[in-house]
Amino acid sequence: MLVELSNHLAEGCPTVEDFLKAEGLAYHFAPIPSNPVYVIVSYINDTQIQYLQSLKTVSKITQIGTSYQLASRKWKKNSTVVKTGSLEIGGEYPVLIAGPCAVESEQQLYDIASFLSKNGVKFLRGGAYKPRTSPYSFQGMKKQGLELLRKVANEFDMKVVTEVLDYSLLDEVLEYADILQVGTRNMHNYQFLNGLGKVDKPVLLKRGLSATIEEWLLAAEHILLGGNEKVILCERGIRTFETATRNTLDLSAVALVKELSHLPVIVDPSQGTGLSKLIAPMSVAAIAVGSDGLMIETHNDPDNALSDGHQSVNFAQFEELLHQLRNISRLNNRPFDFEMQTVNLRSR
Amino acid sequence: MLVELSNHLAEGCPTVEDFLKAEGLAYHFAPIPSNPVYVIVSYINDTQIQYLQSLKTVSKITQIGTSYQLASRKWKKNSTVVKTGSLEIGGEYPVLIAGPCAVESEQQLYDIASFLSKNGVKFLRGGAYKPRTSPYSFQGMKKQGLELLRKVANEFDMKVVTEVLDYSLLDEVLEYADILQVGTRNMHNYQFLNGLGKVDKPVLLKRGLSATIEEWLLAAEHILLGGNEKVILCERGIRTFETATRNTLDLSAVALVKELSHLPVIVDPSQGTGLSKLIAPMSVAAIAVGSDGLMIETHNDPDNALSDGHQSVNFAQFEELLHQLRNISRLNNRPFDFEMQTVNLRSR
Amino acid sequence: MLVELSNHLAEGCPTVEDFLKAEGLAYHFAPIPSNPVYVIVSYINDTQIQYLQSLKTVSKITQIGTSYQLASRKWKKNSTVVKTGSLEIGGEYPVLIAGPCAVESEQQLYDIASFLSKNGVKFLRGGAYKPRTSPYSFQGMKKQGLELLRKVANEFDMKVVTEVLDYSLLDEVLEYADILQVGTRNMHNYQFLNGLGKVDKPVLLKRGLSATIEEWLLAAEHILLGGNEKVILCERGIRTFETATRNTLDLSAVALVKELSHLPVIVDPSQGTGLSKLIAPMSVAAIAVGSDGLMIETHNDPDNALSDGHQSVNFAQFEELLHQLRNISRLNNRPFDFEMQTVNLRSR
Amino acid sequence: MLVELSNHLAEGCPTVEDFLKAEGLAYHFAPIPSNPVYVIVSYINDTQIQYLQSLKTVSKITQIGTSYQLASRKWKKNSTVVKTGSLEIGGEYPVLIAGPCAVESEQQLYDIASFLSKNGVKFLRGGAYKPRTSPYSFQGMKKQGLELLRKVANEFDMKVVTEVLDYSLLDEVLEYADILQVGTRNMHNYQFLNGLGKVDKPVLLKRGLSATIEEWLLAAEHILLGGNEKVILCERGIRTFETATRNTLDLSAVALVKELSHLPVIVDPSQGTGLSKLIAPMSVAAIAVGSDGLMIETHNDPDNALSDGHQSVNFAQFEELLHQLRNISRLNNRPFDFEMQTVNLRSR
Repeated sequence: MLVELSNHLAEGCPTVEDFLKAEGLAYHFAPIPSNPVYVIVSYINDTQIQYLQSLKTVSKITQIGTSYQLASRKWKKNSTVVKTGSLEIGGEYPVLIAGPCAVESEQQLYDIASFLSKNGVKFLRGGAYKPRTSPYSFQGMKKQGLELLRKVANEFDMKVVTEVLDYSLLDEVLEYADILQVGTRNMHNYQFLNGLGKVDKPVLLKRGLSATIEEWLLAAEHILLGGNEKVILCERGIRTFETATRNTLDLSAVALVKELSHLPVIVDPSQGTGLSKLIAPMSVAAIAVGSDGLMIETHNDPDNALSDGHQSVNFAQFEELLHQLRNISRLNNRPFDFEMQTVNLRSR
Repeated sequence: MLVELSNHLAEGCPTVEDFLKAEGLAYHFAPIPSNPVYVIVSYINDTQIQYLQSLKTVSKITQIGTSYQLASRKWKKNSTVVKTGSLEIGGEYPVLIAGPCAVESEQQLYDIASFLSKNGVKFLRGGAYKPRTSPYSFQGMKKQGLELLRKVANEFDMKVVTEVLDYSLLDEVLEYADILQVGTRNMHNYQFLNGLGKVDKPVLLKRGLSATIEEWLLAAEHILLGGNEKVILCERGIRTFETATRNTLDLSAVALVKELSHLPVIVDPSQGTGLSKLIAPMSVAAIAVGSDGLMIETHNDPDNALSDGHQSVNFAQFEELLHQLRNISRLNNRPFDFEMQTVNLRSR
Repeated sequence: MLVELSNHLAEGCPTVEDFLKAEGLAYHFAPIPSNPVYVIVSYINDTQIQYLQSLKTVSKITQIGTSYQLASRKWKKNSTVVKTGSLEIGGEYPVLIAGPCAVESEQQLYDIASFLSKNGVKFLRGGAYKPRTSPYSFQGMKKQGLELLRKVANEFDMKVVTEVLDYSLLDEVLEYADILQVGTRNMHNYQFLNGLGKVDKPVLLKRGLSATIEEWLLAAEHILLGGNEKVILCERGIRTFETATRNTLDLSAVALVKELSHLPVIVDPSQGTGLSKLIAPMSVAAIAVGSDGLMIETHNDPDNALSDGHQSVNFAQFEELLHQLRNISRLNNRPFDFEMQTVNLRSR
Repeated sequence: MLVELSNHLAEGCPTVEDFLKAEGLAYHFAPIPSNPVYVIVSYINDTQIQYLQSLKTVSKITQIGTSYQLASRKWKKNSTVVKTGSLEIGGEYPVLIAGPCAVESEQQLYDIASFLSKNGVKFLRGGAYKPRTSPYSFQGMKKQGLELLRKVANEFDMKVVTEVLDYSLLDEVLEYADILQVGTRNMHNYQFLNGLGKVDKPVLLKRGLSATIEEWLLAAEHILLGGNEKVILCERGIRTFETATRNTLDLSAVALVKELSHLPVIVDPSQGTGLSKLIAPMSVAAIAVGSDGLMIETHNDPDNALSDGHQSVNFAQFEELLHQLRNISRLNNRPFDFEMQTVNLRSR
């Protein structure tokens, strides 16, 4: 903790010094001519920070080092591998999570899951409860959507990834889902995150619309601190001044988070760009920077999708994407999980 | 709805045209040389938009006019006055909501409420459940905090304004609060907003950290659509690249929203700037642009506050602020609610 | 300067320490368990910072205190008053700078200046060379515009404020203008700013579209360092994600800069909001937070203006604005310069 | 052009209609119940837009289609290949531009150019005049730096890429450089861009710090309109709220601009991230999304660089980067220009 003084006392500030002594905190005083500072060596708690922060003689307090601990690679060197059944995220193979933005009908979901499964995809995504900016938009099939997800996923031996819109819906979603998605609008909802810390299922934590990397990792910290270590981060674009794309997909954040944290990171180029034509190039780029997987909105008939059709790929586009992903995976010497199954199936 | 075509068909696009006809929608075709467009005159629903959006021949669809209706002044000309008991927000007098960031103890709350009440303030704010970015920070006194708020407010005949952190806490907060605050992190939590639409108490809806004015009004629309017309908007600063202030308080949004919507708008300069020294000037400026009130973090001892002491004013600063507000209210010929009571008290 | 170590050497880092000793720099080592740091007390130059920054054992270097010096109130306590002839900016009275976005004709300029002058306005603004995003927009009357500005201003005994678009045009503008405006697009053009440091006329330095307060003050530092102390800062809105207003006018920056710097600060609500209906409320608010003046785009016929008509006020709106400014100036006990002249005229 | 009416005149708006008729403009009126609009089919000039924009009955005017023309792929289908001598940018092979942030000495430049040349790099970058936020930082070797760039580049048969800081320096830089770089701070300096339109050398136009894609292409339009068709775009990161990276490198902009425009686009990951460890992953990702080349800050001794050492790669890192680029180029079936030479050399 670095404490800057506002009144430039070359001799130090008695109030600050008295407090540090009274609290038994180790510190150094550095009489920088224009800005004398105290560097506090001991651990300092929240109340102590608050006290210092509000002293008139203190102009600024700066945290030294990271504010998250459990999410940091300093705390845990080895990359975390999140397991659900026999499947792994953050392990040897990048994963592919695909499916429609919203579950619309059993037939739709069956067709999509059947197609994905044939191509080796093992994670089925789909929205049952949809968060929509306008109250006049389609709000999802709700509980019926969850039931369909489970039923169809079981048929193809796939895992269900779906969003928990609100803490009040947690129990319901827990009954049907394998991986609980926290949407961008909920990343700052700490009460909810604390609740997810008590759950024994993986949580896919999307980055907030305007969350810094540090805030994103602190959100993960809320879950980790509750005891749930199965956290998967998901970059999905941030809000900037640019309006030509829906969001600005921040791939440098992926590369950086892989260094700062041991948690797996995947990328959602559908939400991240909002334009189906940008999904393929940004998917390949995401893998190139080290993403542990991709989440792709896929639809049998995007032109008639009830939600986000313009940012979904159709089957032909998806197959072309798989082709490109196979290429980049060869380049990386890190094949995708969907390639694994294809190999296995062939070898039978 | 404006539909731009991607392939520049001077003769129009049969697919689009067929669809519009089949759906019985009134439209005009305008053969602008570089960008022919269709303007759709009829109301067009979500599914129809989705269909058009995903046609290859369509390059862009633009909403014409506002996406919110109930929140718009086009829908309701007269300004909404939100009532709680005999008090009004959005009415003749701007209101002052004040109190500590977090409830810390009965004594603290009693001292603050006593001071505020003597100065005519009728709304007591205070956090019982605190949303904190770091899980290692003070999280509030929770239910005990709510009980103290109610008890102390009753003693001074004040109204309680406090945040509902999550839908699961709604019933608990409803029991104690007069006005339910939705924090900036929850503005996009539509499931929650829909729930608040069923409640018979005023909702103070803070603008999201990176919410556009349109998204903010659409969030209000979610509540209004549920049947709760008692929505108060609160500008509290947006996230920008600037780091010298905690957020960038957007006062032009206040002036603009007063035109676009009939709902009352207040301003929170404590959250908006994060610096106690900026609270007074930005408060006066907020009233100057037409704000219906202010929400001020006030603390008996900011230097020892457990939360946000650096953005709270102490009693002396608060009295100085009241002095400035009285002046600006004279200028506007729109006295504050706290001045009313002072007058009444004196006339007794 | 604060130097954080990346490898957590409890004993300090020999490389850093050797360097600091070799360079004769005073420092402290603080063995914070998770993040040991060096605090450097002596002045440290650019090359030394670069060296430390690139050491593998150093994870981060943080500036302590401000990076600007001449622009800081730490360096000069008293507010700077910029003079041009007998007029002052940053002195006792806030100033009003008004005129059309672009000079369009002698008649237009004469009508506007005549109107402004009658109302006590002493500074005439007008664009001769116009920076336009699109090359297909009106680019200004150029040199002829400068000549008209000078001629008309002389007639009404007003001062000319106009933009220098580029260093190559400096000599030309110097011949005609009293105050040289640096536009938002040039705030980062340091070569140009250095050139303005050699000039003996006031410079009105607009804040860059996405410049932090610190960068803005550093831009002023470039001019001050060249020897020109006549720098006036002008807040004109920053670029954010919000699209309902042209820019987000940052009034908290005005209040903050008045504390951080001794330089005068004025506000341009025309550029800042891009909407003529927001000019009056934001002007009053700007004065409320302590602005030393306003720059208002005024036009005799905004509906036919060749540039920015939608963000200009017409004569009736301007008179209404003056009325409101007189009120706020009474409130502040700080009358405007335009009121002074009115008073003088009356007392004759 | 789409003209929305503010007062919902179901019968159309006489003023607008009269104007359109008087000006002989073709239009359609669409009586959308809540928002009647006019769609103007004819070309409409700046003055006409201004007039409409300021009518009280008009609430909003929206451009339909793109505002740039010469830079658009609608105007020119085939990708532009920019040539300098026998070298091409935007052609079959992506290019590599490398060199130090700033020229520091003949020895430094010679060592770097020698190393780069051996690896097949044909474009030598280096700053002679450096734009620095702080006036206290190293400002470059200026003219001497230009002379060294030319001399050393000639020795290794390389092309010189260097920034023109200001229009006043254009003639000087033209004498020494093969490609003129326009920095991010100058992208909005239209006077300067117009000047570059008259020059017969390629211009490398960096995206402005907070420029939208449309503004970037409009900046290119300024140069193209002057007659210079040799424009190379360079994405270098935009300013967002994120502070963990220096800027947010916007790779989706690269993929999108390749669709919107025929001009070549390259990427600068050094400026874009500000962190040397992110250069390699973001370089590979840039090529994956279709970038026509890369600009890499390379230094023989980053630890002692006088400028931006922390975002430069050293020789070992550069060779590792080349290895990764060779891999991704194989994947794309689009070898780099540096590979070409290696092949040629080997085949001799």
